[in-house]
Amino acid sequence: MKALVYHGPGKKSWDEKPKPVIIETTDAVVKILKTTICGTDLHIMKGDVPTVIEGRIIGHEGVGIIEEIGSSVSNFKVGDHVLISCITSCGKCDFCKKAMYSHCEKGGWILGNLIDGTQAEFVRIPYADNSLYAIPASVDEEGLVMLSDILPTGFECGVLNGQVKPGDAIAIVGAGPVGLAALLTAQFYTPSVIIAIDQDDNRLMTAKSLGATHTINSNTENATEKVMSITGGKGVDTAIEAVGIAPTFELCQTIIAAGGHIANIGVHGKSVTLHLETLWSRNITITTRLVDASTTPMLFKTVLAHKLDPQKLITHRFKLDEIMKAYDTFGDAAKEKALKVILSS
Amino acid sequence: MKALVYHGPGKKSWDEKPKPVIIETTDAVVKILKTTICGTDLHIMKGDVPTVIEGRIIGHEGVGIIEEIGSSVSNFKVGDHVLISCITSCGKCDFCKKAMYSHCEKGGWILGNLIDGTQAEFVRIPYADNSLYAIPASVDEEGLVMLSDILPTGFECGVLNGQVKPGDAIAIVGAGPVGLAALLTAQFYTPSVIIAIDQDDNRLMTAKSLGATHTINSNTENATEKVMSITGGKGVDTAIEAVGIAPTFELCQTIIAAGGHIANIGVHGKSVTLHLETLWSRNITITTRLVDASTTPMLFKTVLAHKLDPQKLITHRFKLDEIMKAYDTFGDAAKEKALKVILSS
Amino acid sequence: MKALVYHGPGKKSWDEKPKPVIIETTDAVVKILKTTICGTDLHIMKGDVPTVIEGRIIGHEGVGIIEEIGSSVSNFKVGDHVLISCITSCGKCDFCKKAMYSHCEKGGWILGNLIDGTQAEFVRIPYADNSLYAIPASVDEEGLVMLSDILPTGFECGVLNGQVKPGDAIAIVGAGPVGLAALLTAQFYTPSVIIAIDQDDNRLMTAKSLGATHTINSNTENATEKVMSITGGKGVDTAIEAVGIAPTFELCQTIIAAGGHIANIGVHGKSVTLHLETLWSRNITITTRLVDASTTPMLFKTVLAHKLDPQKLITHRFKLDEIMKAYDTFGDAAKEKALKVILSS
Amino acid sequence: MKALVYHGPGKKSWDEKPKPVIIETTDAVVKILKTTICGTDLHIMKGDVPTVIEGRIIGHEGVGIIEEIGSSVSNFKVGDHVLISCITSCGKCDFCKKAMYSHCEKGGWILGNLIDGTQAEFVRIPYADNSLYAIPASVDEEGLVMLSDILPTGFECGVLNGQVKPGDAIAIVGAGPVGLAALLTAQFYTPSVIIAIDQDDNRLMTAKSLGATHTINSNTENATEKVMSITGGKGVDTAIEAVGIAPTFELCQTIIAAGGHIANIGVHGKSVTLHLETLWSRNITITTRLVDASTTPMLFKTVLAHKLDPQKLITHRFKLDEIMKAYDTFGDAAKEKALKVILSS
Repeated sequence: MKALVYHGPGKKSWDEKPKPVIIETTDAVVKILKTTICGTDLHIMKGDVPTVIEGRIIGHEGVGIIEEIGSSVSNFKVGDHVLISCITSCGKCDFCKKAMYSHCEKGGWILGNLIDGTQAEFVRIPYADNSLYAIPASVDEEGLVMLSDILPTGFECGVLNGQVKPGDAIAIVGAGPVGLAALLTAQFYTPSVIIAIDQDDNRLMTAKSLGATHTINSNTENATEKVMSITGGKGVDTAIEAVGIAPTFELCQTIIAAGGHIANIGVHGKSVTLHLETLWSRNITITTRLVDASTTPMLFKTVLAHKLDPQKLITHRFKLDEIMKAYDTFGDAAKEKALKVILSS
Repeated sequence: MKALVYHGPGKKSWDEKPKPVIIETTDAVVKILKTTICGTDLHIMKGDVPTVIEGRIIGHEGVGIIEEIGSSVSNFKVGDHVLISCITSCGKCDFCKKAMYSHCEKGGWILGNLIDGTQAEFVRIPYADNSLYAIPASVDEEGLVMLSDILPTGFECGVLNGQVKPGDAIAIVGAGPVGLAALLTAQFYTPSVIIAIDQDDNRLMTAKSLGATHTINSNTENATEKVMSITGGKGVDTAIEAVGIAPTFELCQTIIAAGGHIANIGVHGKSVTLHLETLWSRNITITTRLVDASTTPMLFKTVLAHKLDPQKLITHRFKLDEIMKAYDTFGDAAKEKALKVILSS
Repeated sequence: MKALVYHGPGKKSWDEKPKPVIIETTDAVVKILKTTICGTDLHIMKGDVPTVIEGRIIGHEGVGIIEEIGSSVSNFKVGDHVLISCITSCGKCDFCKKAMYSHCEKGGWILGNLIDGTQAEFVRIPYADNSLYAIPASVDEEGLVMLSDILPTGFECGVLNGQVKPGDAIAIVGAGPVGLAALLTAQFYTPSVIIAIDQDDNRLMTAKSLGATHTINSNTENATEKVMSITGGKGVDTAIEAVGIAPTFELCQTIIAAGGHIANIGVHGKSVTLHLETLWSRNITITTRLVDASTTPMLFKTVLAHKLDPQKLITHRFKLDEIMKAYDTFGDAAKEKALKVILSS
Repeated sequence: MKALVYHGPGKKSWDEKPKPVIIETTDAVVKILKTTICGTDLHIMKGDVPTVIEGRIIGHEGVGIIEEIGSSVSNFKVGDHVLISCITSCGKCDFCKKAMYSHCEKGGWILGNLIDGTQAEFVRIPYADNSLYAIPASVDEEGLVMLSDILPTGFECGVLNGQVKPGDAIAIVGAGPVGLAALLTAQFYTPSVIIAIDQDDNRLMTAKSLGATHTINSNTENATEKVMSITGGKGVDTAIEAVGIAPTFELCQTIIAAGGHIANIGVHGKSVTLHLETLWSRNITITTRLVDASTTPMLFKTVLAHKLDPQKLITHRFKLDEIMKAYDTFGDAAKEKALKVILSS
């Protein structure tokens, strides 16, 4: 089969690789129908993710059809259409029993990281019963690809951890795909004020069209002052960090209201400064989280009920074998005005 | 009347001052029976708390008798014995309605800070109905002084924010009075492992006698390694920071388990480093809080039921007019083996 | 002034009464701009509420202007436009400190019950600081009348107690004004399926227009069977009882899913049968609640942000002195297709 | 092997039966070291549990040694000592993913009900990875038998659902084994007042020795009046029903404070009367639950840490082949002063 293979920093190619087979009785092999590229994949390509070895097939998102199935799998059969979770869950370790699948002792984020991933014609999914979700007939499968990672990530790490409530004022710092996923799913809880902050006007326009009540270009405006002006000097109840660098985390600390929540989504490569000299008395909660994908069933229901439209995050479409071109487009997201790209087999 | 007055950094004296009077109809004037000295008072004396002006009567803890009462106060009458909360609550601003009394628009921590305090023969308490608690007859009033500040602080900022649960492993970093208050009240929730960490062997011995299952002298032992050894390499579910300096907050970050809670109690004068480069994916919650004293009624009930014995935190007793000597003792706590000192009128 | 006075079962009239005056320093006297009639008022008129004595001015909802103000009131001044809460809160008893204002030792539901109410040209509001809410300039005041009672009732007793979550299937049994208030505010949490059940097709049409995804006329359809069909045989996650009689509470028990919540709003005059012989093992939660109006500030924010449009519940408008006619209309709600009537001075 | 077999109402015998074998790859066969008899087993013997067919081996509690293991089981190996949960969990259905194992689509309470149980020399345990717990060396295994059912039942259905908090006043209605399990585990949360109510003075004495602060013999005292007297007329914050008949559920309704929780544990054979005519406005929560055994790991930790001593519930010991005699003793619990009996192989 064909697959997108990492060959060391800066090197990738669309290679011929052996088709995966069932190894454990709990495995499934899935024929990929649609997949996508994640910001994390770009980091891998730069060599930023040391757990990814040369020769690894990349990708942790997608929908497909069950091609082959292990003897212990009971929730699925060959031919079923399935959504692949970016998080693999064994269902029987201490972390899985707490629904903290991100830290599953045998799973977690392993697809396209410790084992071969989804940017390929076929992929082997361990613990299929706990790591795949059945797709009912006649559902739009393109949009569902957003449920593999980006929507649970924005929702769990940003919205749930941020404890967004009706009537709240919230800020989302970073209007890339994950920030926009947080923006879409924050609206499940009907906040009154949603401020999107970014340095890219195009992304801010998208944020506005997806429900932001205010936008701030932090390159050209004083973000702290403007947030304070919008919130009557109180700051926001929830600040969602969706970038992963020190200045945006710093901004979250300056705009948070007393009693507020800073929910970190960003993948940080360096430490940040925490201003406990002011925050110690401000009754603040700060959270971090690797997505558990424990809310995938909940999100699935909102998509089926047309309460959440994941299509809104898709900007470009390619054939699966055009994936090298898709990487170019996604890798130059600002210029290409790219959010999520869909690759179809 | 006599009162302990702050006269600028390093200067205090036991002065004659005018007896306070009712200013607002919601005030009470309380004759002090017992008061104590807080670590914060030592900071004030060093000049570290800029909101405290020269001439201020210090102190925010105590029990007493209602001497005079404003016409709008309905929960109390002259002669009632009362516990004074360190936090003043108006009961009618947005923060008070959310039980976040620390940020009361007209109250919060004002006693011995923005208005005259309790280290005096008499004190005026604004919003008496919401800032005092009735003491039933025949209750030990000495122990109740610990309910003014230290016990709600340890409980709310450390234990409640740290979400201590039955069976958990927790660490308390700092075994001073507030850390020990957290230690006592953490046991309300029956954690399995309680590790006290300090640099003072005497305080660690006290911690052990108050319920710590393990103690670590971080001066002579590698605290991180020992915590990891105790917890089977997982780290603690809750780390309570009760010191307020960078190294202890740093320690909390190295000993926290995935999914754990770091609950800051310490009053920090400087920023700290937050290791998001490792914590971003560890599902950690970090909280800060100025005590709201919203749990004072709950704590009161546990004291009355003999489930909590605040006496255990008292090491020294003085007459109120010996307060200068009491400050010397409390100011040299390590040598004097002092935790809380009681001053009685 | 003029006021609507209860003169015993079946007897009411629009009488001349003395204008109320400040009695306590915490009182305000409010000139009524707009008020409405509640289903409870109809019960009072029938003699069903024994705490209401003859001569009582009825009504517990409304907006108005501060006419006179007690000396201790600090949140308001004469001339302020205010929303009147149906629940009076002293702000300083044990229940108020727990935000359980419905059980306030000196307040709770007293307006138009134990003291004179709002269906009058003026009303005295005790504990004004905790029982009134400021209305910003240029806000639609007619819609805000719905915030006095009906919206917090539907939201707190139905939606919050029912723990409605994104993706849930919920049923609202009873599509009268309170049921519809639950329907509107349930959508704050983005359930996937909202089933409205009633015996009046007109109300069901209204429910549909306000967001119900399915409607069932329980008079002509088998409600249990239809709910099971809609939910794939599982039942609903939340069943909100908004009628107050045995058959509707019975229905909630037959349509609730394992692990679900039955949230009672209805005012019941008689006991009901609880089927513990089946429910004991079904992990069900049943809640009751007299509205606390603790969420009024939250609801207010959603109205100001146009996330909630209370106008949708208003069907008829009268002059205040046409209140006898308004009672006729509201008393014959089915025929008149009446939900809430607005009376304007 | 030998096993206790149900042969229809009133008929049981200690029979020779085939030793169980591995059927599914997720099974384990466990050699029983210790087991016990549950009140539910007595109901089965009376014919009250229609799902239990003639020929069924009874019993759903016990500890043992892994005798044989299916190829997919990864948490255990032959020779491991294990605790058997009364609840079987597949770990991969929707209910298991919500930790609501009681309603597992393929599991739940099946042991000694739908499949053969633990009152035998060997038992087959389906989904072993999710339904067994490893026992560390040198732990008292006799006490651990209480973790199979009775302690999670008392804790989850009574204490957790009842939301017991520090300082609360609680009542436990029924001081049989499950009520006493609730009594022991309620103390994890340090309530101030624990009232045990029963008709058997011996059980009340036991309750007192296990931590009850007050006891009431409802046969000789007016339980409602006494509870009101103890609680200053307020009633209890939590009432735990651990009997399963109408009068005890009725009592819970009369002693519950406004805002309180009624947590039903009892297995009810008939419906009860719910007094909504008074409770509708009292802000009450009523819960039901079949034990999920989701807290078994938490409880295990408290036992290992000596915070919970399950031995206290054991009154009688027999050899496994004396089980007919053990049934006689347990079946005449009042006279025999029996709580839990231990059967050892």
